[in-house]
Amino acid sequence: MSNFKCIEFVDDKLKLIDQTKLPLVEEYILSDDLERIALAIERLEVRGAPAIGVSAAYALALSFKFIKDDYENEFQKKYDRLTSTRPTAVNLFWALDEMKSKFENLTDYTNVYGELLKKAKEIHNDDVEKCDGIAKNGLEIFTKRSTVLTHCNTGQLATGGGGTAFYVIQRAFENDLVEFVYADETRPLLQGSRLTAFELEKAGILFKINTDSTAAMLMQQGKIDLVITGADRVAANGDSANKIGTYNLAVLCKYHRIPFYIAAPTSTIDKNCPDGSQIKIEERSKDEIIKIKDVQISKREYDVYSPAFDVTPNELIAGIITEEKLHKPPYNF
Amino acid sequence: MSNFKCIEFVDDKLKLIDQTKLPLVEEYILSDDLERIALAIERLEVRGAPAIGVSAAYALALSFKFIKDDYENEFQKKYDRLTSTRPTAVNLFWALDEMKSKFENLTDYTNVYGELLKKAKEIHNDDVEKCDGIAKNGLEIFTKRSTVLTHCNTGQLATGGGGTAFYVIQRAFENDLVEFVYADETRPLLQGSRLTAFELEKAGILFKINTDSTAAMLMQQGKIDLVITGADRVAANGDSANKIGTYNLAVLCKYHRIPFYIAAPTSTIDKNCPDGSQIKIEERSKDEIIKIKDVQISKREYDVYSPAFDVTPNELIAGIITEEKLHKPPYNF
Repeated sequence: MSNFKCIEFVDDKLKLIDQTKLPLVEEYILSDDLERIALAIERLEVRGAPAIGVSAAYALALSFKFIKDDYENEFQKKYDRLTSTRPTAVNLFWALDEMKSKFENLTDYTNVYGELLKKAKEIHNDDVEKCDGIAKNGLEIFTKRSTVLTHCNTGQLATGGGGTAFYVIQRAFENDLVEFVYADETRPLLQGSRLTAFELEKAGILFKINTDSTAAMLMQQGKIDLVITGADRVAANGDSANKIGTYNLAVLCKYHRIPFYIAAPTSTIDKNCPDGSQIKIEERSKDEIIKIKDVQISKREYDVYSPAFDVTPNELIAGIITEEKLHKPPYNF
Repeated sequence: MSNFKCIEFVDDKLKLIDQTKLPLVEEYILSDDLERIALAIERLEVRGAPAIGVSAAYALALSFKFIKDDYENEFQKKYDRLTSTRPTAVNLFWALDEMKSKFENLTDYTNVYGELLKKAKEIHNDDVEKCDGIAKNGLEIFTKRSTVLTHCNTGQLATGGGGTAFYVIQRAFENDLVEFVYADETRPLLQGSRLTAFELEKAGILFKINTDSTAAMLMQQGKIDLVITGADRVAANGDSANKIGTYNLAVLCKYHRIPFYIAAPTSTIDKNCPDGSQIKIEERSKDEIIKIKDVQISKREYDVYSPAFDVTPNELIAGIITEEKLHKPPYNF
């Protein structure tokens, strides 16, 4: 197992690794102060949809360590503060609404903190269990000791549990089924070279970082046995949206006859979305291309095309690994 | 035509654009001092193989503006100083040896400066003419007004003339055959977002910069009509080595049925190299991945796979454009 924890409840406080400082500095935030945790979400010290939801749930619970009256008004104030941190994060709202429903169903206010904390832990555990299920089902895709290539960040730092694609790789490594990992650096935000590299180091897995377009040459040289990535949204027919660059990998896999897998919780599958053409793709700020951290690379006035995600059509996906099972094509969710 | 010149001989001096400051600052070095020009080569203020050779030839000639005796010793000293600037640059040695042969064939020393300057201008003009030929022959690949994607930097800033792949695009644009260009940013050194973007701006061509792995999505959306890149070395069978990421593009083109072209001078074709497997690929320093400019992105101790070039097999190349002609497959140089 990995010798770090991204989110942990210890000493009656929430402990978060500060992701903005990784991988150069490994520093933790230990707090029972809602405002401090809200700031951590705003500053991206904690990021990754499930991790944000879990952190917000703990923050809401922790605030009731100190509240002794006017519970209903206080709950609404704390709830509002937390929803304002990342107003487009779906998981954040989902987790806070779970907490709200718990609060509204309390029969009395004798142990609000205890009850809310229990619910926050349930939300956290639910995520841990889903990741465990994905990792377990993912073992099926390995037919031999393999070299795996992955994209973006899909481990503990992106989830409330052990991760999705990354956790499959880690569990396979622990079962002697992974011998080496290549990590795409993942432009523009470099989650691969910053976060996945850190997770690989912590898990004790041998790895190298490569620029995204080097993946093709690695496959040409026969160095890659399989590719696994996460997904942000999976349509009913299996078309999958994920971090920009994923579709590129899927096409490369097709050409080089390498299996390409997606790993994601069942909650990522949107049965109301018939196919990939219905998935709206957000465009990112040009600053992420024109600047890197605070260094200006090119001119502000240059135009940029920077979609956050791309969509991989189902025919390029060898399997979709969820906590329920390894889904094989044809997909019909 | 573009309203800047990368290398120019004006007012009896060499004028170079300082490429290290591009695209943020457009600043020129105007000098007849060999030492200053040698420093420009060392500091990468002038870069690109032919541009280095041309600059060194001018520097050697210019030093004889001021030398009035001891010509042979002085020639050797200046020659040695210039060869020490970039000791692995093949074009640098070639250009300086051309100058040396000219010097050794002088019948008297009455006009050493004038004779060497004439030779330097010949070397420069030769490169200009090759680029002109490539651009002219490149027009043949356009069947309609097109959107083109390119990789790395292949314009004036990389050659002594108008460029290779870039000059094909520019000439086609002037002939109303190009309507838009997508420029891969080209990790790790970002020559696309820094230099190609600057050249596109100067040429008045509409463009956007994209991360390298976004090329796949652009093709999926039907936005790209053709791809053109340069080449560092072409084998006798047409297999072509070029900046890392080129092979990735060629595979994407194959999958999306988009023609992929190479543009390069005939001197790039190595008839003694039977195929791509014989091309040795240099690995770059891990610092280019782990750091960007002076900003540390990831940990120094992480391992990196960073080849400078990849090799595109001939079967993925729709045509190789040289100053002689548009070569079509099967290639047999």
